[in-house]
Parts: sequence; C-alpha cells; structure tokens
Amino acid sequence: MAEESNKLQELSIDCVIFGFEDHQLKILLYQRAIEPEMDQWALPGGFIKIDEDLDRSASRILKEVTGVNNIYMQQINAFGAVNRYPQKRVITIGFYALINPGNYNIVPGVGAKAAQWFDIAQIPVLSFDHNEIYLYALNILRKKVRYEPIGFELLPEKFTLTLIQRLYEAVLGIEFDVRNFRKKLLKMNLLIKLPEKQEGVAHRAANLYKFDKKIYNELKGKGFMFDL
Amino acid sequence: MAEESNKLQELSIDCVIFGFEDHQLKILLYQRAIEPEMDQWALPGGFIKIDEDLDRSASRILKEVTGVNNIYMQQINAFGAVNRYPQKRVITIGFYALINPGNYNIVPGVGAKAAQWFDIAQIPVLSFDHNEIYLYALNILRKKVRYEPIGFELLPEKFTLTLIQRLYEAVLGIEFDVRNFRKKLLKMNLLIKLPEKQEGVAHRAANLYKFDKKIYNELKGKGFMFDL
Repeated sequence: MAEESNKLQELSIDCVIFGFEDHQLKILLYQRAIEPEMDQWALPGGFIKIDEDLDRSASRILKEVTGVNNIYMQQINAFGAVNRYPQKRVITIGFYALINPGNYNIVPGVGAKAAQWFDIAQIPVLSFDHNEIYLYALNILRKKVRYEPIGFELLPEKFTLTLIQRLYEAVLGIEFDVRNFRKKLLKMNLLIKLPEKQEGVAHRAANLYKFDKKIYNELKGKGFMFDL
Repeated sequence: MAEESNKLQELSIDCVIFGFEDHQLKILLYQRAIEPEMDQWALPGGFIKIDEDLDRSASRILKEVTGVNNIYMQQINAFGAVNRYPQKRVITIGFYALINPGNYNIVPGVGAKAAQWFDIAQIPVLSFDHNEIYLYALNILRKKVRYEPIGFELLPEKFTLTLIQRLYEAVLGIEFDVRNFRKKLLKMNLLIKLPEKQEGVAHRAANLYKFDKKIYNELKGKGFMFDL
C-alpha cells in the first residue's frame, strides 16, 4: 500500500492506557480489523512514520485507533523477541499513560472493529506479546505508586479518601486497612480538605479532598517512599 | 555489504557503560573507524541482527566494539528524533550498565579506532545524539541511587567507607559531610564490617566493609529511600 511506504517497517509503537472507573483499574483495548491477528483484542498500536518523533507518533497512533487525544504518554520499554510478530521482524516500543476515562470519548478508528475499556481482572488473550507489554506496564505503575504521588490524572478533581484508597487498592491488588491507609496518606500533606462534602449519597456524606498541586509536583520531582 | 543484509536498518542499540575508578565516575567510549562520523568518539553501538533478541544484541555489540563481555545491561529508553542520524531514519535503543573497570580488558574491535574510559567531567562531543543518551542514563543512575542500593557491581569486594562515599559523590556530583553520610549509610544495615583493615596505606588504615548480599538484594527488590 502506498500509505505504508512512509512508515518504518521494522518498528512499531504500542500503548498501555490505564484508567480508573467504578473503583476498577482498566486498560484501553481495540479489536483488530486487519491482519495479522484479525479480530483479536490488542493494545492500540501501529507503525512509526518516517518523519515522526516517537512521542508524536505514539499520540497519533492512539488517536487514530481509539479516538483518545491529547494525553501525555511515557515510554516504558522496547520489546524485541525475535518471533514476537508473525512473518517479519518487528520491534515495538511500549508507551503508557494514566487517564480518567470519564474525560475521553472512545471512537474506534483506523484498523479497529471496536475499542473499549477492560477491567484488569478480565484482560483477554491479546495479540502478539501484548499481554507481556501490559504486565510490564502494570508492574511499572505498581512500583511508581510507592515512589511518587499518582492520582492527579486518574481521579476527579474532588474526591473522598475512600476513592483514593480504592485507587491504590486497584493498582496494587491489595486491600488496605482504612485507618492505617488514611494515617499514612494524610502524613504526606498531599491533600487539602475542602469545606464541601460528597453529594447525592444515601449514607453519611464523606469529606471531599483535592490534591495540593504544589506539594504534588514537589514530591513528583523529588520522589518519596509511600510505605504501603 | 553482505554482512549488513542480516541487520535491521532502522534500528540500532547504543550502550552507556558506567565504571568507577580512581574515585571518578567514567563511561566507556570508542572512536569511530567508519562513516558516518568517522573519528568521532561515540557510545559503543551498532545495528540489531534480524535473528537477535535485544539483550543478546546489546551484549554482542558491546563485545564487538570494546571487548567488554559478559555484563548484564538494562534498557533505558529509545531515542528517535527524526534527524538524529544522517541520511536515513535510525531509531536507537539505549542500554546501560555499571561495572568495575578493573575487571575488564578493553579491546577496540569492529569499526573502532580506539576504546577507552572517560571521566564524566571530560566527556567530549559525541556522535549523533550520544551526549543526550549519556545524560539520560546519568540521570537514571542519579535517581536510582536514592531508591536502591548500588555499588555491588562498581566497587571491589572489600572497601572502605570513604570509597563508597566517593562513589556516591561521583555519581551525584555532590560532596557529603563524612559523619552525616556514614550515619545514614550504616543505618541501612547494608554493610558488614570485616575484621581486616585496609593494607598498604601511608595513613592510619581504615576498616574494610562488604555488602550484606541478602539485605542488598532485599532492598533492591523492595526499594528504599536513601535521603542523601
């Protein structure tokens, strides 16, 4: 295809997009409408254009395949097992990002029959080595939450302490003791308690919090140890 | 060239090898004997063979160019700015490692006029975007020393507290107060004090230490915060 001639044939990008919704950690997958591995679910991915920087390429691919636009993705690793892709040798560079699904419309696009969020407890068998790439990204996320604050991109602007605990629990796959978790969390001075309370709940309304952006960014730069 | 036909033409590997010697942090460079950028100093690098996994490719390339063999390298990042390489589009995957230079012979090989260690205070202008790749790796190393123990691969088996302080100072480019540094270091229980003392020194012989391998590996897995 003429369209393919401006793409590097040995090198692709695949994106692991994490979202947090209904107290679950999810990833964004699409169903392939093209060979190889037609009909399989896969990480959003594609080939790099010859005149494209890697970050721009990752953004373009994610948008084309899933409609998700304007997010900052970070490189995680290149995956290059000799037989990871059928017929030809393709090495892929993995990218990842954390987003709040509520802020984005999913629109299956180029080469996609469908695109949707999957709870990480129910990830299907994916194309190529995509299960491995996803697990690699999950592992990075699990390490990261112990060294730097997360949540800013994943949570709504105002949230309860229960919600942020659910986020950590969903990422780490562990249940925490409520009192212990809150004590450790509040000790970091990362949160600002708001005068408002939760609205529209049947039970007793909980306090709402937001991140202290200054401290959040400081801790993000300097790192910390959240001893969960 | 026939030899080139079994190599991926769009994708290379470059290696940032850190060593610690004479109280200095160093990296291993080679002088190019081939175009492009003939005669320039560069990070040891080359193209990936079509039937080679990435780790094996990195090891082969490092050995061919510099003679350094049998070291474990870790991927850091792919570098793919559109014009990073002349004439064609080449994306490179950076690898890095920490070694003790005393344990290895440098033998300039394929495509190399020379190969040697350079003190990081005196890194020349390197080929392509290699200064950027080196700085990226240095930055990773600087973050890493705050989160996990280092030194095992860089120091002799038995070392003085002064030597390990010099290592941290060389990596971070900071001078530490002796008492403070030792207090923080010893608090981690990472070191075992040996009955022997330093030999062959004019001044008063200092105590020798070695790493407690079990704790070293535990901390490496779990991570810590060395608040330097």
